[in-house]
Formats: sequence, structure tokens, C-alpha cells
Amino acid sequence: MIIVLKPEAPADSAERLLRKIEDAGLKPLHMPGAERVVLGALGDERVLAELALDGDPAVESVKPILAPYKLVSRELQAHDTVVDVGGVSIGGDRLAVIAGPCAVESPEQLHETAAAVKAAGATLLRAGAYKPRTSPYGFAGHGIEGLKVLREVGDDLGLPIVTEVMDTADVAHVAEAADCLQIGARNMQNYALLRAVGAAGRPVLLKRGLSATIQEWLLAAEYLMAAGNPNVILCERGIRTFEPATRNTLDLNAVPYVKGKTHLPVVVDPSHGTGARDLVPAMSLAAVAAGADGLMIEVHRDPSRAWSDGAQSLYPAQFEQLMGSIGAVAAAVGRQL
Amino acid sequence: MIIVLKPEAPADSAERLLRKIEDAGLKPLHMPGAERVVLGALGDERVLAELALDGDPAVESVKPILAPYKLVSRELQAHDTVVDVGGVSIGGDRLAVIAGPCAVESPEQLHETAAAVKAAGATLLRAGAYKPRTSPYGFAGHGIEGLKVLREVGDDLGLPIVTEVMDTADVAHVAEAADCLQIGARNMQNYALLRAVGAAGRPVLLKRGLSATIQEWLLAAEYLMAAGNPNVILCERGIRTFEPATRNTLDLNAVPYVKGKTHLPVVVDPSHGTGARDLVPAMSLAAVAAGADGLMIEVHRDPSRAWSDGAQSLYPAQFEQLMGSIGAVAAAVGRQL
Amino acid sequence: MIIVLKPEAPADSAERLLRKIEDAGLKPLHMPGAERVVLGALGDERVLAELALDGDPAVESVKPILAPYKLVSRELQAHDTVVDVGGVSIGGDRLAVIAGPCAVESPEQLHETAAAVKAAGATLLRAGAYKPRTSPYGFAGHGIEGLKVLREVGDDLGLPIVTEVMDTADVAHVAEAADCLQIGARNMQNYALLRAVGAAGRPVLLKRGLSATIQEWLLAAEYLMAAGNPNVILCERGIRTFEPATRNTLDLNAVPYVKGKTHLPVVVDPSHGTGARDLVPAMSLAAVAAGADGLMIEVHRDPSRAWSDGAQSLYPAQFEQLMGSIGAVAAAVGRQL
Amino acid sequence: MIIVLKPEAPADSAERLLRKIEDAGLKPLHMPGAERVVLGALGDERVLAELALDGDPAVESVKPILAPYKLVSRELQAHDTVVDVGGVSIGGDRLAVIAGPCAVESPEQLHETAAAVKAAGATLLRAGAYKPRTSPYGFAGHGIEGLKVLREVGDDLGLPIVTEVMDTADVAHVAEAADCLQIGARNMQNYALLRAVGAAGRPVLLKRGLSATIQEWLLAAEYLMAAGNPNVILCERGIRTFEPATRNTLDLNAVPYVKGKTHLPVVVDPSHGTGARDLVPAMSLAAVAAGADGLMIEVHRDPSRAWSDGAQSLYPAQFEQLMGSIGAVAAAVGRQL
Repeated sequence: MIIVLKPEAPADSAERLLRKIEDAGLKPLHMPGAERVVLGALGDERVLAELALDGDPAVESVKPILAPYKLVSRELQAHDTVVDVGGVSIGGDRLAVIAGPCAVESPEQLHETAAAVKAAGATLLRAGAYKPRTSPYGFAGHGIEGLKVLREVGDDLGLPIVTEVMDTADVAHVAEAADCLQIGARNMQNYALLRAVGAAGRPVLLKRGLSATIQEWLLAAEYLMAAGNPNVILCERGIRTFEPATRNTLDLNAVPYVKGKTHLPVVVDPSHGTGARDLVPAMSLAAVAAGADGLMIEVHRDPSRAWSDGAQSLYPAQFEQLMGSIGAVAAAVGRQL
Repeated sequence: MIIVLKPEAPADSAERLLRKIEDAGLKPLHMPGAERVVLGALGDERVLAELALDGDPAVESVKPILAPYKLVSRELQAHDTVVDVGGVSIGGDRLAVIAGPCAVESPEQLHETAAAVKAAGATLLRAGAYKPRTSPYGFAGHGIEGLKVLREVGDDLGLPIVTEVMDTADVAHVAEAADCLQIGARNMQNYALLRAVGAAGRPVLLKRGLSATIQEWLLAAEYLMAAGNPNVILCERGIRTFEPATRNTLDLNAVPYVKGKTHLPVVVDPSHGTGARDLVPAMSLAAVAAGADGLMIEVHRDPSRAWSDGAQSLYPAQFEQLMGSIGAVAAAVGRQL
Repeated sequence: MIIVLKPEAPADSAERLLRKIEDAGLKPLHMPGAERVVLGALGDERVLAELALDGDPAVESVKPILAPYKLVSRELQAHDTVVDVGGVSIGGDRLAVIAGPCAVESPEQLHETAAAVKAAGATLLRAGAYKPRTSPYGFAGHGIEGLKVLREVGDDLGLPIVTEVMDTADVAHVAEAADCLQIGARNMQNYALLRAVGAAGRPVLLKRGLSATIQEWLLAAEYLMAAGNPNVILCERGIRTFEPATRNTLDLNAVPYVKGKTHLPVVVDPSHGTGARDLVPAMSLAAVAAGADGLMIEVHRDPSRAWSDGAQSLYPAQFEQLMGSIGAVAAAVGRQL
Repeated sequence: MIIVLKPEAPADSAERLLRKIEDAGLKPLHMPGAERVVLGALGDERVLAELALDGDPAVESVKPILAPYKLVSRELQAHDTVVDVGGVSIGGDRLAVIAGPCAVESPEQLHETAAAVKAAGATLLRAGAYKPRTSPYGFAGHGIEGLKVLREVGDDLGLPIVTEVMDTADVAHVAEAADCLQIGARNMQNYALLRAVGAAGRPVLLKRGLSATIQEWLLAAEYLMAAGNPNVILCERGIRTFEPATRNTLDLNAVPYVKGKTHLPVVVDPSHGTGARDLVPAMSLAAVAAGADGLMIEVHRDPSRAWSDGAQSLYPAQFEQLMGSIGAVAAAVGRQL
């Protein structure tokens, strides 16, 4: 339920109504705006109706939130959320470019790659210390040692860190080392993890599941916000379809669609979305033209020797060239790098 | 098989070898280039091997075409095909914009809409006289009367016509009225139709089937070329996936992928690719950024009264505004309207 | 609209009302039952409403047909349709088994295979004279010569023939040679073909399209019935999904679901539904247990030499063994071979 | 690598070779058979090659395991695994029927439903204490209290318990209360959970992910076995496709396919596989006919009042009737209840 207060409502109206909502066992929300004060109430619809808030003298209007997701909905918050990740804004006019290797392999590999992407204009560093692998015999990441390397390289170069967490047991120490916690596609509906990460006090990048509908994706974001975390970044990374030519089918329809439904920023990962280095530049530009707030791109100092995802990682020189093209397309749609 | 002749080969070598290929029951192809003469031979691989063309003194090299499609393959023709549709080029630096209503409803409706899209910068007119409808009780188009209206409006405004043909029995009169024949998504593997349209002497716009792999799509194009038609335009229009939020999932990955595999031009239809008017502008820009050679967009003078596809048709004013944005993104990727 | 007459309605009521429906420009349907006379009226809902049939003294009740398909709906006809194909019933207690090779290759190949499947208990013969092939360079069938061979072998062995037609131009001569015309998966939404086959006066076997929803499939059947053909057999043959292990995903959910929605018989094709010989027996039994009215199975005298679909064709000895198992499962679910 | 010893090899050969494998840093496996001793070695292929085991006098043959999964593969173990869950065998001639409500709602609800399914012939009890819910506002299960109720009801009725675990932090106490731990579809690639459950010393029922390929599913099972758990039961529960008529598409092709690739037992969940009560009986029979080793069926004492999954839960009387039909089909394919 969204409650809009009258302009002339007494100054203590918001506080009074929020208490009333809370006393009824519902979740109260306060959204002071420039022109109007808007309150929210989440919970059992029947209890909400019994409060009869539309009869309150301070209330101008009451309307239900039609979407199954509430906190993430544009119905509840009309303006865009801008998430601050270690000093870098995601969601405003300036596009965020998160780049780096699939995995932390060694301090040298990470540092060299990170320095290259920074020089080319990337503003955040990505790399995995915990890697989800289809086979139990694959390289699963360096874990805590990898986190240390990430932190050191990030600090040295002044790049905020985005890295994946896969287990509730690891949330605390990943949150200590990273500026932004990533929930991977395979864990988008790992609800225990969503709750733990939602409570960890760090911005979160939430990848869309391989076969998650947009509604399921936004409900996963709702888990994070309902656990107390307003700093959620959505990441489209390709869905699973019948087409075998590409690793996944990057669903760019989702970008303008989701931006209509939610106030949260949306970034696009063309590396996983295509699985093929040659397609990454074109799809990066397409994502920006479609309205994405940022990109997440795999780059490796030498993709031919990458321990994982080599086929979809750009060479540093390709990334540098791509950044120039991104700048041009961004300008054409009223954004900037 | 691709046969490259030596620079110093006698002038009659090509003719001699083509005759040899034909005499063996194979299909000969002649592709004179600026620097080298290239021949092709299609058919039974064992017969090809017996010809031992690599031993011929005029031949520099012989290599197989690895893809299952041959004539459409970039292996056989490295440079881009540019298709001329009634004087408008599709496939070069200049983007083609094909716009118009879903169906011919009345002379006035078509003329008013066509005049509006022309004024906004569209260079070709689309509208259906034969409409594939999921239900037998839906409006299936005005048929021959619709074709007449299309021709008159096209002539009056100087816009070449693109329209769908659905039955081998209709190919002759659609080819008479239209500048370009469209094969719809549902008929992409209607092989009798592909053969008939391939022989009709008109350029063809081949839509990708709802669940066609890219390889199947290129093989459908191969049917058209094998029937003698070199003027084939591919059209990505969204694929069927599990996602219910949009009518289809526009597969923009396919644009750079297909342009790597074939020399044929690729246009994108964001109207069917999304099914939602609000998503068409963003996805039009994304398609251009991804490298499409053109767009096919549904516009209606009054979408709220359209007999079909109203929800995905732009208002003329929206289309006009979109054309401005398309021009900006086109320029950013080195193309123009 | 379904109109149920009162038991005591005068004898000429049906005739009178049907004339009234027809005069209003609607399609009248007559369905005399053992206990009640039921009429149908198809067409513009507003015209139907104006007739005010529920006020007629002979009418007990009037209710709309909710499904988008009408003639195929169980709402309109509650009892099962049984289709007679050359003297063999499809849709009753006895399961129909349609078997034979993918294509007519030679008179000997067809005769030997047909004799084997008949000896094992198959009651109808399948084989293609017109073959839809993904590549224009594949074997596309012997055409009219193939039809002659089919007719001769069918007559010789007393097996009714089921064979595919792909082009409106071929409908007349396929209808002359075959007892049942098959619409293939790729042509399920080839509406010109549906209309032509619907008017051809032969039973039709309608395969589900590769990515057709059940509703689209039933609407394709509606095309056939609306064109005047009440003898429609539905055939589930696998849908396209993300799973690469099998050629298609046989959707057996569709069997009980469709049988709840329509009165038409449903057969299952486990050969295309799996694409793998080893899986055909298990899925044949599963189809029978799920309630299918019959099976369509590819058998070849020597699958290792089949010109097409060899990997999914059974050896005659395997088919014979399978028929024994089918009989046992059929009996367990109250059916018989 | 699979190493088959010669029949005449000295008695200590297996031990000697296993030590050699282990000393090289590889994982040794011992599979004594009735006729031959077979050893396995998993790990780096190059190290394996260096051991040159095929030159050892006790070794008859050495062959690689071609599949990416090893321990679960039939290449490594030809005979079927039979898993003992609280005294009930899953994987042998006798079909296992796991039945019960979606969730533990109250002691009475669980006891009444459990008593009903037991009376009808079910041999194991299912019900969730931890429920994955798409929305954070849905009922997520009673947790530890629910586990207690489950244990009590199971003990009272003599039914082993199968219940889901969703978080590594809960594995210990779920393993204490339940006879078999279920990994749900959404967690099939939650690798931290797979490792923890693999080490918990309880049989595991591993549901196939919504869009997991069969290979990914078997690799998830490999995680469990690689963590030391040989008692893995696979559960097909429907995949996500484009078809909206049913909640999921039950992929019965997977049953015979998977049983060809692995020695592990496979059960089928037609409740989630269809999402519709009316389709559950037909698909239960189809699953048995396809070769499933068991069924997992949702039953509720009053589905109209179920807190979750009511639409797909059977009434106790329906379940009782279904059990009779299952027995008949089981007998037809050489199995029994």
C-alpha cells in the first residue's frame, strides 16, 4: 500500500501514521519527497484494509502496489536509485564499467589485468575468489587467499571490488574484503544466501538466473531489500534458450522492461551473455543503446591462458578500443562514461 | 568447394573449369573479384574430389566450405552483399528503415500512415495483404485488393513495398505488386514456398522462425539462393523463450554472429521482437548499435484502432522522434540513415 | 455459443433455430445427442447476443465457448471423436500403431519394411514421398513416384497409408494416393496448407509444431475443422527446449492435457520425440500409459542404411518386441492393441 | 580411468595398484565384482598416463571414462545402485512411492495426510520444513519445529522421511531429523550445499534444476559422490519451456536416457512436473512405464486449504485410486509396488 500525505498535513502526520502501521504488525516505509511525503505499508492486505488509512485526515490517497514485488517497484519509488560502490555511482548519468578477469589466478595476473582495465577507463574491478563450476573437478577459486589479493590490488589501484559469494558461511569475510557482493546466476534463488547478503551491509550485484523470468528476478531483489539492503544492482547476463550458437541469449529486451518496473540500476554482462569474445563489443554497445546503467566485462591479460572463461574474455587492447566506442554510443543516448 | 585461380592463369581458365564442374553434375559458381577469380562447386563431395581440381595448372588452391550452408556463407563470398529493393540499398553504410502498419486495412489508413513514416525518414513501406493469424476466425488480410492498394500507395509516395507471401499459389501476383517478398516467421521452413519465392525474381526478406536456430535460418536462406535468388535479406524478429514479460525475446546476439557467418544483410524487427510499443525505441537503438543493416518497425496512424498488432505499433509522432535517436546512434557506430 | 434445447421442445425447433443462426450470418452447428439436442453458433459475439436465443421457448440454456478454439473443443462436443482411416479406427479403445520408414526409398525397401511392421501388428503404414529437409541439398523425397509406391504397397498389404503433404499445389494428388494426410511440424502454422488440406476430404494427422503452444496447436486443428474436415488426429512429436541430449523433448504432459480440452484423438511420435532408437521403446510405453490413442513409430528394414532419420528408426526385430510390451501396458490402462 | 584386472592377477594386486594411484595424488576407487576386479583412478589425465598402468602385469585393460562425470557414470559401475532410505530400497525391482504434503503445516495436518498415504501404499513420507518461495513474503516453512513434527510422524507411522535442506547452515540438523535430504531444483547448482550434503552421511534426493541439462544434473550428482556420498537418488521434476499450459514440462525422455548413463536410481515428481492435479495420475503411470524407479507425489488431506501447491496436490482418495493403477502398469513393465 502506498499512502500519499496531503501537502497541508500536520508535520507529525508521517510519524503518527508510521507508528499506526507498525503497531498493526505491518512493515512501515518512509519516503519523504521534494513535494509530497509518501509512506508505504507492507504486509497482510486485510490488516491493511482494516487500518482504513484513506479515512485519515492527513491522507490524500491510498493505493495498492499491484506488482508482487513491492520495495523494488517503481510504483513505490518513482525516482532512480543510485548505488554507491566504494565511491563509484551506479545508476546515474555516468555509465559504470566493471571489468576484470573471471577469476583471481595470481597476484601478478590480477594486478596486470586490473591496471590495464583501469588505464582504459574501467571504474570497478571484478574477479572471482569463489567460482561456481559445473564439474566438481574444475578450479573453484582461491577462496580467502583470493579475497586478500583482490583487496590489495583494489587498494593499490583505487578500484572498488565486485566479487561473488556462494555460501552463507562466507558472507562475512567476503563482505569484509569486497565493496560489492555478487550473487551469481546459479544462486539467484538461493534464498538463504539472499537473506544473508541482504543483511550484510554491502551493495549487491544480483545476476539474473539462467532461466529466471523477470518477475522472479525482481522478487529475488525484493528478498535483498526486504532484508534491509537498499543498494541492489541488477545484472542481465543472458538466458538459456534453444539456440546453441551462443553460450546464452543476452536478453536486452529486459533492460528497458525492467527499468520501467523498478527504480534499481541495471547493468549488462555481455561476456556471459554471448560466451564469445568476438560478440562482446557489439553487444556492449547494444546494451548501452538499450539503456543499461553499466557493463560488466571479462578481460584477461592473456585470454588464451585463462583458467576459466578464456573464450569470452577480451584482450586488454580490445577492451581499450571498445571503451572508445562505448563513449560514442553513450553520448548518442545522453549518457557518459 | 572454393577454387581460387592463379593470377597468371589463362583468361579462359574460369570458363573451362566451370564447364568441367557442370559436366560432372555439380553446380558451378563464378565469382570474379578485383584481384583474383574465385570459382565455386557445390554438390557431392566425392564427385568433387574425383575432379582433382587442385592438380589443375590454373588453380592456386582448393578448400572445402565447412558450414552446411554454402552460397550464403562468408567462406564463399567475403564481401557484404548489398540488396537493391526498388532503388533503395540494404546492406551498405546507410541504414534501411522499413516502416508501416501491420496490415493494409483501407486505402486511407495505409496512405496516411505511409505518408507519415516517409515524412519521418523511412525509406521502404511495409504492410500485409496476407496475414498469418493464429485463429481461423481472425482478419487474414485483404489479399489481392490489399496488394493493389499497396502498389498505388507505394507509387504515389515513391516508397518501395515489402509485403508477405504465404502460399506458393500467391507468389506470382505478390511478386508483381511488391518490390520485396517477405517470408514470415511461421513459414521459414515452408520449403515449397522458399523454392517458389527463390525463383520469383524479386528480393526476399526472410524472417527467422520463432524457434529456428541460426543455422536453420541460414539454411533457409540457402534454399532461396540455391533457387537462383542472390537478393536475400535476413530479419531477426525475436525468438520464443520461457520469458512471458515480452511477446518474444529479441536475439540481438544473432546480429553480430550472423554477420560473421554470412555476407547477407541483416535487419531487425523490434516490434515483433518485443510486442510492446514502449520497448520498441530502446530496442531499435540497440539493434543499430549491434550492427544491424536496417530496421523494420510497425507504425499505425492510430494504434488504438489497429485491426492487428496495435500494442506493438508506434504512433507516428513516436516514430518521428525515434528516427532522430536512430540517426545519433547510427553516427556513433559509423553508419547513417 | 452452445445452445441446449429443452427435452420437450417441438421437433422442428433445431431446424428453425439453425436457420435463424444462419440468416444472421453465423455458422450453425447441429449436434443431436442421445438425450438432448445441442446446437452451436460460431461468429461475431455481438451478433450472437442480438439473437437473444436464451429467450426462445425451445431453448433450455445458452453458454459461450470460453476457449479460443471452438469446433475442436470438448465444451462443444463432450464425447470422443473416432476417426476412420481406411477402415482403421483412431480414437477408440483400440490403440492405433502407425509404423514405417521415414521416407519411401525404393519399392523393395518400403515393401519389406511394411510387411515387417504389419507382421508385428502395426495397423497403418507411414512413409514420406515429400520430405521437409533443413538443407536444400538433402534428399527431399521421390514425390509423385513415391506416392505410387506407397499406394501399391498399402494395397498389397492391406495397410492404410499416412503420408505428409507440404504444398497446397500437391494436396490433390496426395489426397488421391493416401488415406490420411499428414501436416508436418514445420507446417503446423502454414495456414494456406491447413485450409487446403481441411477441404480435401481426407482424414488429417496434424503434428504439433516444434515450438507451438498447445493452444496454437488446437487452433491449427480448428483451421482444419473450420474448413470442413471433422477427421483430425493430433500428433505430439516433441518440442524444442534447451536440452541437447535428445533431439526434442517429448511433451507427454500434453497428452492428458489435450484430451481434457478436445474430443479429437491424440497419437504420439516417440521417434521424433527422442531422436534416439534406444529411447523409443520406453517412451512408446510411457505415451500409452499417459493415455495416447496411438503411436507413430519409425521402423526401417536396415536403419544403418536409411537415407534419413536412421538414428531414430527401430530395427524390425526391436519393433516386434516393442509391440508385445505395448500390449501389456495398454491392457494395464484398459486399452488394447 | 577404469582399470580391469586379469582374472589370474595375484590377490594383492588391487591393493598394490590402489596405493600406487593414491601415491600419485589421484583418487583411487575399488569396485570388486563377481567376475573381475575393477579399479578406478580419478584426477589429472597426464599424471594418470605417466603411471602407465596398462603395462602392469596384473592389468588386463585400461580405458578412459569419456563422460565428464565419473563416479556416477555407468562406464565406471555397470550395475544399478540401490539406495537404502530408512530401510526402504530405492532402485530395485520394487517401485518407491514418496508421498505427502508440500509443507508441514501442523502436526495434525501432517499426521492425517501421512496416515492416508501410508494406508494407500506409500513407503516414504515427504513434506517440507524449509520451503523455497519465489516471494520473500510467502510461507517459508516451520524450520526446526517442522523437522520435529516430521520425525515424530515418521516414527509413529514407520515411514522414512524425505525433506529439503536449503542452507549449508541447516545441513546438520536436517540430517539428524530426516532419513533422506532433498536438494531442490533451485539449489541444484548451489555447490556449497552439494558439498555439505555430500558429506552429511545421509542419502540424498537430487532434483533436476528448472533449466539444467542432463549433463549438468549428473555433474551435480558427481559433486555429491565426490564428497563421499554414494547414496544419491535423481529426481526428474519438469523443466522450464515455452509452454504455458502446464507449470513445467515433465521431461520423461530423461528417464531412459539417464538410466543409460548412470547407475543411480531415478524417481519422477509428476506434481511439480505438471503443476495440475488432473494431470498427475496419467503422468505417474507414464513415468513408471518409462522406467522410473519411483515416484514423488504431493498429497494433502484437503488441497483446497493447502498453504502451498494446493493446485497440484492429490486428494487422499485420488492417491489411493492412483496406487492401484500404478500397480497394474508396474506389473506390465516387470516391476512391483
